[in-house]
Amino acid sequence: MDSEEFRRAALSSIDEIVKYYDHISERRVVSTVEPGYLREILPNEAPDKGERWEDIQKDIEAKIMPGITHWQHPSFHAFFPCASSYPSMLGELYSAALSGACFNWICSPAVTELETIVLDWLAKLLGLPATFLSTGPTNGGGVIQGSASEAVLTAMVAAREKYLHEKLPPRPQGQNDDDDVDQEREDALAHLRARMVALGSSMAHSSTRKAAKVLGLRFETIAVTDGHVSSSPPGTSDARGADMTTGKGGYALTGPALLAKLRDCRARGLEPFFLTATLGTTDTCAVDDFSGIAEALAQFRAECREGPGGDGAGEVWVHVDAAYAGTALVCPEVQDAIGVRGTARDTSAQIENETGTPKAANVTARSGVFDTFHSFDTNMHKWLLTHFDASCLYVRDRSWFVRALGVGQAVYHNAASSGGLVTDYREWQIPLGRRFRALKIWFVLRSFGAEGLRAHIRRTARLGALFAELLLSEEAQGMFELLAGPRFALTVFRMAGRGPSRAMAGKGKVEGEETEKNTLTRKLYEKINHSGKVWVTSTVLEGRFAIRFMTGVWKTEEEHVRMAHSLFVDLAREVLAEQPTAN
Amino acid sequence: MDSEEFRRAALSSIDEIVKYYDHISERRVVSTVEPGYLREILPNEAPDKGERWEDIQKDIEAKIMPGITHWQHPSFHAFFPCASSYPSMLGELYSAALSGACFNWICSPAVTELETIVLDWLAKLLGLPATFLSTGPTNGGGVIQGSASEAVLTAMVAAREKYLHEKLPPRPQGQNDDDDVDQEREDALAHLRARMVALGSSMAHSSTRKAAKVLGLRFETIAVTDGHVSSSPPGTSDARGADMTTGKGGYALTGPALLAKLRDCRARGLEPFFLTATLGTTDTCAVDDFSGIAEALAQFRAECREGPGGDGAGEVWVHVDAAYAGTALVCPEVQDAIGVRGTARDTSAQIENETGTPKAANVTARSGVFDTFHSFDTNMHKWLLTHFDASCLYVRDRSWFVRALGVGQAVYHNAASSGGLVTDYREWQIPLGRRFRALKIWFVLRSFGAEGLRAHIRRTARLGALFAELLLSEEAQGMFELLAGPRFALTVFRMAGRGPSRAMAGKGKVEGEETEKNTLTRKLYEKINHSGKVWVTSTVLEGRFAIRFMTGVWKTEEEHVRMAHSLFVDLAREVLAEQPTAN
Repeated sequence: MDSEEFRRAALSSIDEIVKYYDHISERRVVSTVEPGYLREILPNEAPDKGERWEDIQKDIEAKIMPGITHWQHPSFHAFFPCASSYPSMLGELYSAALSGACFNWICSPAVTELETIVLDWLAKLLGLPATFLSTGPTNGGGVIQGSASEAVLTAMVAAREKYLHEKLPPRPQGQNDDDDVDQEREDALAHLRARMVALGSSMAHSSTRKAAKVLGLRFETIAVTDGHVSSSPPGTSDARGADMTTGKGGYALTGPALLAKLRDCRARGLEPFFLTATLGTTDTCAVDDFSGIAEALAQFRAECREGPGGDGAGEVWVHVDAAYAGTALVCPEVQDAIGVRGTARDTSAQIENETGTPKAANVTARSGVFDTFHSFDTNMHKWLLTHFDASCLYVRDRSWFVRALGVGQAVYHNAASSGGLVTDYREWQIPLGRRFRALKIWFVLRSFGAEGLRAHIRRTARLGALFAELLLSEEAQGMFELLAGPRFALTVFRMAGRGPSRAMAGKGKVEGEETEKNTLTRKLYEKINHSGKVWVTSTVLEGRFAIRFMTGVWKTEEEHVRMAHSLFVDLAREVLAEQPTAN
Repeated sequence: MDSEEFRRAALSSIDEIVKYYDHISERRVVSTVEPGYLREILPNEAPDKGERWEDIQKDIEAKIMPGITHWQHPSFHAFFPCASSYPSMLGELYSAALSGACFNWICSPAVTELETIVLDWLAKLLGLPATFLSTGPTNGGGVIQGSASEAVLTAMVAAREKYLHEKLPPRPQGQNDDDDVDQEREDALAHLRARMVALGSSMAHSSTRKAAKVLGLRFETIAVTDGHVSSSPPGTSDARGADMTTGKGGYALTGPALLAKLRDCRARGLEPFFLTATLGTTDTCAVDDFSGIAEALAQFRAECREGPGGDGAGEVWVHVDAAYAGTALVCPEVQDAIGVRGTARDTSAQIENETGTPKAANVTARSGVFDTFHSFDTNMHKWLLTHFDASCLYVRDRSWFVRALGVGQAVYHNAASSGGLVTDYREWQIPLGRRFRALKIWFVLRSFGAEGLRAHIRRTARLGALFAELLLSEEAQGMFELLAGPRFALTVFRMAGRGPSRAMAGKGKVEGEETEKNTLTRKLYEKINHSGKVWVTSTVLEGRFAIRFMTGVWKTEEEHVRMAHSLFVDLAREVLAEQPTAN
């Protein structure tokens, strides 16, 4: 394919992509192919001779599209969104053209430097503490990872390194030669590693469990239930913020629950070294109580220091998994609701706006809830109009990344890196090479601007609120129950069952009702997805089968939410009609 | 940016990219910006209001390009290539448009199925054993990873799981509940883990060391020197194969060296569980002696079985790191030279072609050298015309990936996955989500065809041979020494020093000469890169500072290699002229 052929092929591809997006709502959301469909229609081997672009391209619509589930479809309400946008695609196109294995600065200085800059831009947009800025006071900064799973693994590796260093500082001799093993220290490290435990709430994403499994470390969960209420937002007077961050349903990790777990671990001889705290859990978009967590950790650390051998007490690394909902922090009202900005200015300014007179009592300085935490990760590729992959990981002190992940090799030696003037992101990640992912982030931030991004988040969050409203308006008819949300464009609900008509009483009655609700909801769930008109996913909350309804896709408009709601009502009636009458 | 704006922006981007490639040789290969250049010319914050595409686009040439090192430049002779090609870019463009977090089959069946199919296509093109095919006899298959570092980490996690399972099978009770800890077994596991050691030759890429570091496991190197000769290629009669895979310089891992290391580990109470064997080392493109490695491992396993507690002897997982040179296996003559194809058919066919009469003696079945190995990884994004990232990892038994990396969560539950009919690649990798990387591989394999890919590999390998030839033709004048290659388009050389004119003798003379050669070569290296006309990287071979010259970039033609050689001669003369005359 020469330049002219490429030009023609690219123009034709652009046309196809525009057509795809302009008509995406006409497609079925989820693919209906059977497993193995593609092997039946593709050859068994690569062709010997090169094929013409025309022949390749026509296979996209004919053979690939039937197997595509359309994540940008306006009726994609499953999981969380995985965005795309035109500026983001352009960034990827340039990135592919400028391909390089940019493992250190000199391999393309712009790749490293733009990444540092746009991650600082994003950190400021999100209101993150200065500890996460590359120019901040604690040697921190941001790095683009491929996914939140890689981010939590990377953070956990750094946390392990830090913890082991604090508990068992290396001896001055031989620490730079990995092959020169200090057997006594190795044994002590192995003993310690076997007792280190990573923690997360029972609603934390499975990536923390997976990271611990990969690293051969223990993982334990802290059970959270509906009874635990999400962290009380400081800025509840702000209606928009309340819309997005509050909502029905608990499932937040609280300080007391964490402290109890930490003490329990210690009593069993375990060493908690890592905690994933979540801003927007996968199941219900719960927000852990970050202030309570910070207090519990401070309390626990003090207790450890007072105990035997307390001098070498290690610190628990707190990783904030804000993979999905973290990008909503582009809205100042969400920053206030979560409490990420610690300055007095922000609080007073907000109150001035609402009452016209500043309240002196509110102008006292308050710490941001993330100020003492060690890492924070959010995926622009979920809700923030950037296509997969763009997981933005921030760290309070990057030296722990470099210590945990730095490995020298002569062939990578160069003056800039040796001079210590530059960032070599290969020491902040598992892979060595990396592509130019900052480009698409740069294009997205500039094309939409802060205002455009906020408008997108607010608009789609409002669609979530609208859906919950419609659901509650039907609740008068006893058809649905809201289990969680609306919060960050997510609403979790189930069917309400047929209630009082059943001739049962007491505990048996409650259990029977729960079983019936699960059966009905599962039937509704299957009917919804079978319809092909929308796609939703399910979860199970303390035994309650529930449907998640997410409205964060940029193509989703009010009409799609109303259509989905009407569909759910119709299908719920069908479900009820199909049930045998109560005895 | 609406559809029409995108169409215009994309057309303009395509024009820019075509212009970039058509005129790439007019640019300086390596960026000359100073660290921090970009921060000085970009704003400190993202804009509030969205910007027009025209304003964004003009910053690419004005602000980004000065900080780009051009990996597709015909005079990029550094490291290994990191390819791109027009069909590959089109694949990425479609992938961005079809953005999704395709962590399981139903998230887009085509993403999973095309990956399985094109990796089977590639395995067949490379002549890999059937054990690495998804349809093969051992439950194997391929998966696209982001980089060779992620591939070796993933393989090592699976290897650890397998080894621990073989040495300490889990008890029937409680094995499915990660929180229900069997304290006794945990302690035994910790004890075992602390003694497990991953191995690689001293020329193995640092990614194995890094993977072990990430996993908190030991890593030890097996020293290899120039004296160790690369594996003797079975097909030396094939001149083209010999050109690409043989060449000066040893540095291959041999069976006896491995066996000595394994015994040494065992004597020290360590448990070798993982070995990285390399096809094309970073420094010299050495090829480890795979047959010798297989024999050494079989011998070691037999010895372990005979020893105390030998019933539960674990197997050493062999990972073949063929990150760069592995793609040269698309050429049948390289397959024969390496000995990957074990069938009699291939051998006899080749002999028929050359002599006209089949030799019965050669038709006896022979095992391929990879037949007993556990994983194999090669990066299409290095030499095979696909842009970063496309690291193709094959595994003999995928169930070890799934056991090591599978973590369930209710929200990902779906009928297809539960039915066991489909592949969920999230269980074959560290990340959860993934983008549609198979598309660019599909486009590349189809656009170039097997013939086009072979032609590219052979052409650029011949450029390496040409360079070495030019270098040797000058050697008569005593200017350069060939240290390794030409092999797989890589040649490693240094300046020869001024030799006999020095009035020294004995060991002091040799050391003095070595020091002088290093000084001269370092000066030449700096002059070459300072010229801005080409970019080369350096390495150090047993104390000898050397220059690596790689010719694998698709834009590189004979004229560029000849230009580089002339430049080296001119600069070497300068270096010699600048030296103080010998006393």
